[in-house]
Amino acid sequence: MSSGDEIKKKLVQNAEPVNEFIENILTSRTPESLYKASRYLLSAGGKRLRPYLTVKSCEAVGGLAKYAVPFAASLEILHNFTLVHDDVMDHDDLRRGKPTVHKEFGEPMAILAGDLLFAKVYQSVLDHVPPHMSSDEVVLSLAKMTDAIILLCEGHALDISYPQAMDVTEKDYIDMIGGKTSALFMACAEVGAIAGRASKAQVAALGRFAWDAGLAFQIVDDILGITADEKKLGKPVGSDIREGKKTLIMIHALANANEAQMKVLKKAVGVSDASKENIDAVVKTLYEIGSIQYAKDEASKYTASAFDNIKDIPEGQSKQELVDLVNYFVQRDY
Amino acid sequence: MSSGDEIKKKLVQNAEPVNEFIENILTSRTPESLYKASRYLLSAGGKRLRPYLTVKSCEAVGGLAKYAVPFAASLEILHNFTLVHDDVMDHDDLRRGKPTVHKEFGEPMAILAGDLLFAKVYQSVLDHVPPHMSSDEVVLSLAKMTDAIILLCEGHALDISYPQAMDVTEKDYIDMIGGKTSALFMACAEVGAIAGRASKAQVAALGRFAWDAGLAFQIVDDILGITADEKKLGKPVGSDIREGKKTLIMIHALANANEAQMKVLKKAVGVSDASKENIDAVVKTLYEIGSIQYAKDEASKYTASAFDNIKDIPEGQSKQELVDLVNYFVQRDY
Repeated sequence: MSSGDEIKKKLVQNAEPVNEFIENILTSRTPESLYKASRYLLSAGGKRLRPYLTVKSCEAVGGLAKYAVPFAASLEILHNFTLVHDDVMDHDDLRRGKPTVHKEFGEPMAILAGDLLFAKVYQSVLDHVPPHMSSDEVVLSLAKMTDAIILLCEGHALDISYPQAMDVTEKDYIDMIGGKTSALFMACAEVGAIAGRASKAQVAALGRFAWDAGLAFQIVDDILGITADEKKLGKPVGSDIREGKKTLIMIHALANANEAQMKVLKKAVGVSDASKENIDAVVKTLYEIGSIQYAKDEASKYTASAFDNIKDIPEGQSKQELVDLVNYFVQRDY
Repeated sequence: MSSGDEIKKKLVQNAEPVNEFIENILTSRTPESLYKASRYLLSAGGKRLRPYLTVKSCEAVGGLAKYAVPFAASLEILHNFTLVHDDVMDHDDLRRGKPTVHKEFGEPMAILAGDLLFAKVYQSVLDHVPPHMSSDEVVLSLAKMTDAIILLCEGHALDISYPQAMDVTEKDYIDMIGGKTSALFMACAEVGAIAGRASKAQVAALGRFAWDAGLAFQIVDDILGITADEKKLGKPVGSDIREGKKTLIMIHALANANEAQMKVLKKAVGVSDASKENIDAVVKTLYEIGSIQYAKDEASKYTASAFDNIKDIPEGQSKQELVDLVNYFVQRDY
């Protein structure tokens, strides 16, 4: 079995009790339509990365996996709530290979379903506090999750405003993906660690690990949006370019292109109906400028930093599983 | 000074520390645009009824007003978050005499601003626990608030599905307004009481008081939507009729109209371009059938029940203020 298959199997195994918890907490009440819309995306799949991070962080500090399950479910619901609202905001029609919630149930119901999921994030924890945890620890966990949601909103608001902006810096980009991806990863690791009764230092270390891993994931995602095989990727390779998305690659390219290269970029970056030829020329130019390699190097840097952050977490199976997960995702080719 | 002026003055006084708390918790971070959109509706006014309920419930059980301020702010933010998303869902253009958040900032930013406010509901409490409260009490308060949000979502989802339905019963209506109005009122009273360190019985009594008061408020609101002076009401008198809103009045009328009366109703109920004449004829018919009087009697019944629920709460100024508030609102004429 390849390491990729091994990790996928572990993700599925880890998700089992979490999915069961989610099904229970989203059992229908009146009106049925609201609950159907709320379960729809969660039951459409998803890798359940965040529950894995949560449970493994709990185990890595010596906690039992079952301690972390309500939090893992809560954080997966949180992730899905943001996707439901993101798709409404971005007018996206497809997610996980199915019509998005608003396409299936209408925008009002999608907004409401997102709001219900948001409330379920808190109910998952408040109504299912593991008996070994104190209310102080619950309050601390909820505060970490709430901070993550605030960063998520800020990250998305930045993302909305960037395509128009031409003066986006690398720091702006890192702030934005910090909010959009790392904040929730960090909350998963921190809350999992708290459920495992970690020391403050361990909670912070696992949080920083997940934050940096989130940055590496997102940078790799942006690279794959340009370099991946279109069939494997599941979306058109040029879409980030046509949207004018200010990825690390694009920021590097705009800052380092010579006059001729800039001409090529301007033909397709942010041009919603750019031709396949112009997109291909942009991709070639991004390689030429060295922007793809630059982004790869940055992703490696954040991965190394992620691992460095947990050097004081005791070696063991769960810590190794966290490392394997990150290595697998930053080395994937789609 | 009339009792109405007296109550308005008290609402304003009570709101002062709450507004200050809200301003602080919504102080701008990056991006400014998100925070501007989030503050917009809160700074546009509002009666601050919910903070009044929260603070007075705290005082009624012997707590200091300042204990309840973070909760009062949290619950007002919660109310405003629901309004921001409601306006997006209902495509409403005006609120508190100003363009709605989505009209001013666009739909994506309005959805995000609502989500940020949602997170701030929890942050208001989690980051500002009054020193006299235990984490157990905080967890209990947040659970009450979370239950209210879930009922709110369910109530709105019912409301979305009712205009099309012709078989809406009185019970359906009461369930719907229970979710849309009473659930949050109840949370205000319960959480205020918890902040005031009430006994379990007192928390429950004040909660039931606020639930019934919420039903009376909403029924009176529906009556005024038909009987009020249009200039005082601030919206066209026929709009509920044209929308086909299944209010208690309409449910009663549809169940009790004779053939001739039904003919009159059908010309305007749910007819979006119904003429002024047809609307006037419907209003006259609603009086004839006795539907207006029926709704008034029901509102009185719930008001009496509200007061009965708090008969064991010690008499005193704050309890009297709660009673005055309810009497004022159910007796208002716009």
